[in-house]
Amino acid sequence: MDEITFAVLGTGGIGRRALEVSQHKDALTPVAACDRHGVAVDFDGLDVDELLAATEGNIDNEVATDGGTTAAEGGIKQHGEDRGVVASSQARPSEDSIQEIIDHGDRIDAVLLALPNYEHDFIPRTADRFAEGGYAGVMIDVLKRSRVIDMLDDRSDEFEESGITFICGAGATPGLLTGAAALAAQSFVEVTDVDIHWGVGLKSGYEDNRGTVREDIAHLPEYDIETARDLSDAEIEAIIDDHDGVIEFEDMEHADDVLLERAGVCDAEDVTVGGILDVRNDEKPTTTTVRVTGRTFDGETATNTFQLGDETSMEANVNGPALGYLKAGVRRNRAGEYGVFGPADLMPGF
Amino acid sequence: MDEITFAVLGTGGIGRRALEVSQHKDALTPVAACDRHGVAVDFDGLDVDELLAATEGNIDNEVATDGGTTAAEGGIKQHGEDRGVVASSQARPSEDSIQEIIDHGDRIDAVLLALPNYEHDFIPRTADRFAEGGYAGVMIDVLKRSRVIDMLDDRSDEFEESGITFICGAGATPGLLTGAAALAAQSFVEVTDVDIHWGVGLKSGYEDNRGTVREDIAHLPEYDIETARDLSDAEIEAIIDDHDGVIEFEDMEHADDVLLERAGVCDAEDVTVGGILDVRNDEKPTTTTVRVTGRTFDGETATNTFQLGDETSMEANVNGPALGYLKAGVRRNRAGEYGVFGPADLMPGF
Repeated sequence: MDEITFAVLGTGGIGRRALEVSQHKDALTPVAACDRHGVAVDFDGLDVDELLAATEGNIDNEVATDGGTTAAEGGIKQHGEDRGVVASSQARPSEDSIQEIIDHGDRIDAVLLALPNYEHDFIPRTADRFAEGGYAGVMIDVLKRSRVIDMLDDRSDEFEESGITFICGAGATPGLLTGAAALAAQSFVEVTDVDIHWGVGLKSGYEDNRGTVREDIAHLPEYDIETARDLSDAEIEAIIDDHDGVIEFEDMEHADDVLLERAGVCDAEDVTVGGILDVRNDEKPTTTTVRVTGRTFDGETATNTFQLGDETSMEANVNGPALGYLKAGVRRNRAGEYGVFGPADLMPGF
Repeated sequence: MDEITFAVLGTGGIGRRALEVSQHKDALTPVAACDRHGVAVDFDGLDVDELLAATEGNIDNEVATDGGTTAAEGGIKQHGEDRGVVASSQARPSEDSIQEIIDHGDRIDAVLLALPNYEHDFIPRTADRFAEGGYAGVMIDVLKRSRVIDMLDDRSDEFEESGITFICGAGATPGLLTGAAALAAQSFVEVTDVDIHWGVGLKSGYEDNRGTVREDIAHLPEYDIETARDLSDAEIEAIIDDHDGVIEFEDMEHADDVLLERAGVCDAEDVTVGGILDVRNDEKPTTTTVRVTGRTFDGETATNTFQLGDETSMEANVNGPALGYLKAGVRRNRAGEYGVFGPADLMPGF
């Protein structure tokens, strides 16, 4: 496959790790990155090491406490005392860093939206901005929430007209595990249950993934994405203390359900997602497992199983697939296939 | 997805089960089937129940004891006393049933080659015939042997020019398990080992799958595909007796290796395929398992695992994926993507 250029929106845990993992991938060249402070663009390829050093210790830069509306209009905002991308010699300040990426869009094959904590409509509205700005390429997100998929599907015609191939839910879950479920379903003529249960140990990775922890807390019954966004860091620490560092999640609103339904695998209501997050150990509290139960054409009922090794970090399981799906998306885009695709539609490239 | 019409070449175990499984798939209409006796074509959809009844008890019709060369030139030959497709009221005799499928090719979206026991060049040469006959659609096989992939890749330009999307190795292994390995690889930046180990229990399915058993015997160190094809049924029974009904295979020449290498996942030599076949029990002698071991971007080594439930039959694990990959192939073909694709390139449709 020919060289692929890509941009990363957001330099939090996901954005930074995507840049890092891309260094291991031959065909992928990161050419732009932005956050609320500014933007770095270099079509010879960003200096990832310098950028990672510059953005190290960014405080929770996936969350905009002053509202993603403003963020979507202008630059990407973060709270905290972080220095952001502008601490790198490759970057310069920008009042509207997203627009600068759009303005360079004709040389960018794919844009990774590494911004998990904005309001539900942030990603769809950002896609609108790219479409209106004349972007014709791949957009890819690692979103989690089921309700966002419908908002993207509503934009299918817009994407078709613009030449945008939008890959949604392309991290670990939804993403890798959704794809595994869709593949495991192939033994069956009817899928009755998909059970996704993840384990994440995040002691040493905690600092770099507070955005993800906050997003997870939003899945607890007492919270939602708005109330979780308003929590102070101290309040988040208090919630973690209340749970002795180990938080268990049940019936999470993860888009695996609608993504499997739109691929025809099963009804959304037959999909359950839960998991255990341990922020005081790096060891996973449980082995991440996908179980797909169904009926075969010859009348048997069975369960196919996919398990991730306990030694793979959440970062490895999110960012490898994200870049793999990005590659697959570019292949589709170059073949002239536009619209919305999920991880059950695509085999990620390696 | 719009309606898909497909043809099946061969009415042995694989062809018959593909017809049967397609009845459970909404968008798939079987419109043609052929074997050495004749051909059935009906664009309103074949009467699968009648066809299955007509071909029941076909003796090993996946094997041409008088040589596939003749078979490739003319109709598909079988040995034994089977009645074949012509026992169905939908079919008529034909001296060259493959040509009749080619002649109807403009109304056939996909052709499934369900003929596992011919010489290595049978599938590539059959593809040549379709290309020369002006066919522009999907061709899909469930071949096993690594060396065939290169012969297909050599024809990439021919397929491009013809508008043929060729999906190779799209059964269980290679096929579903290759795809699972490619997906499981996403956690890693380097894959060091892929280990595929299958279990098949084939007591009640033995009669219907003697072609597959013969193909497996060809993987034993003492045999190859030519010597296995020359074995009489009695000699095959004797080999089975020698092994007390349970035959273990190591280092099989399964195309999973080259299919993963061409997808960039790992070197072919890092892939091992083995398995255990028990023809005297329906229970699987071992759980079919794929283990993918690799190194993550953050330096860990881990193993991701995919397991098929013991209750799924070989037929379910071959034919579900075959039709799933067929659907994915038609989608690619309609988007104008031609050439050779493997199961590590495509997410099968459901």
